[in-house]
Amino acid sequence: MNVTNIIPPQSGAAFKLNKGDILTVIDPLGKQVSDMVLFNGGDIKERISSGKTMDFEETILLTTGNFLWSNRSNKMMEILEDENGRNDFLLAPCSPETFKIMYNNPSYHPSCLENLFKNLMHYNINKDDIPTAFNIFMNVQFDTNGRLKVLPPTTKPGDLIRFKAKMDLIVGLTACSAEDSNGGTFKPIHYTIAQP
Amino acid sequence: MNVTNIIPPQSGAAFKLNKGDILTVIDPLGKQVSDMVLFNGGDIKERISSGKTMDFEETILLTTGNFLWSNRSNKMMEILEDENGRNDFLLAPCSPETFKIMYNNPSYHPSCLENLFKNLMHYNINKDDIPTAFNIFMNVQFDTNGRLKVLPPTTKPGDLIRFKAKMDLIVGLTACSAEDSNGGTFKPIHYTIAQP
Repeated sequence: MNVTNIIPPQSGAAFKLNKGDILTVIDPLGKQVSDMVLFNGGDIKERISSGKTMDFEETILLTTGNFLWSNRSNKMMEILEDENGRNDFLLAPCSPETFKIMYNNPSYHPSCLENLFKNLMHYNINKDDIPTAFNIFMNVQFDTNGRLKVLPPTTKPGDLIRFKAKMDLIVGLTACSAEDSNGGTFKPIHYTIAQP
Repeated sequence: MNVTNIIPPQSGAAFKLNKGDILTVIDPLGKQVSDMVLFNGGDIKERISSGKTMDFEETILLTTGNFLWSNRSNKMMEILEDENGRNDFLLAPCSPETFKIMYNNPSYHPSCLENLFKNLMHYNINKDDIPTAFNIFMNVQFDTNGRLKVLPPTTKPGDLIRFKAKMDLIVGLTACSAEDSNGGTFKPIHYTIAQP
């Protein structure tokens, strides 16, 4: 049986996957976003790229059947299953500056960038090298004029998304810390890793 | 009088701007895209970020009045004027792999990534560190389902876009090499730099 790993609210984790491993990310309570970044397990200069992914997949909205691509034009993950179906790949992880600039909050506030960095630094990954994340379950709506609106996720308790690693990977994963992205409350994220 | 610098078809340039300088990018013949990347002139680990820009500006489509932001949440440029009004910030620069994977062309093909890298390497910038570019004049259409379609630019001969540097910058700029992005032919890009 697969161990269920728990990411507490407003925190993060980093771990390795081997090529072929299946990562399942679960929203146990519903309406919670999880930011995910990927690095090549053997060479951290290769990392997930929103620009390459949207180019090769020819869509802004990635779901079952789509691949996540690297800055070197290699497939990093395949989305095998996506019960909710709405994810975002436009917006950068929330950072201390997000809360100062967009929320007008000058105090300390936990953020996905900090939670990714604190966990990924053990793999020698620098804060400046954390790219735009694949924002699992994040509900960013847009119209054809390009205007963006962040709405609460539409996930029901237990909704999951399942990925297959297409190369050895270092993964950074969070339970997102931004009020507007998570319907105003902060919940945990669960994940499991299965070998093929 | 400002010198007009010429980027020949399917090539690129890199240069420095001081804070306050005005960069004007001109499409002299019309229907030609120019990919632009930005780095902090004093610290190349700080670079333009599509994810931070779309987050802070709350739009996919950037034009007059919008700012281009860095991965460290600082303003890098302000768009002062934009005669055409359509630019793209979704898609990564075309690369050798773009032509193999999307165009099914196994032969050598010039690309924006190569033309950015060949010029930016003189500033110690690595190919892996070239981010998603701000694609000036690029006409990427999308619907609310997220489907992307690359159409020819709508620029008329002489259309220009004008930027103000908000910090000291290293700029990479191309005349784009991808058939589909430029209406099937490759034209030059002109640019001028003015001091305030």
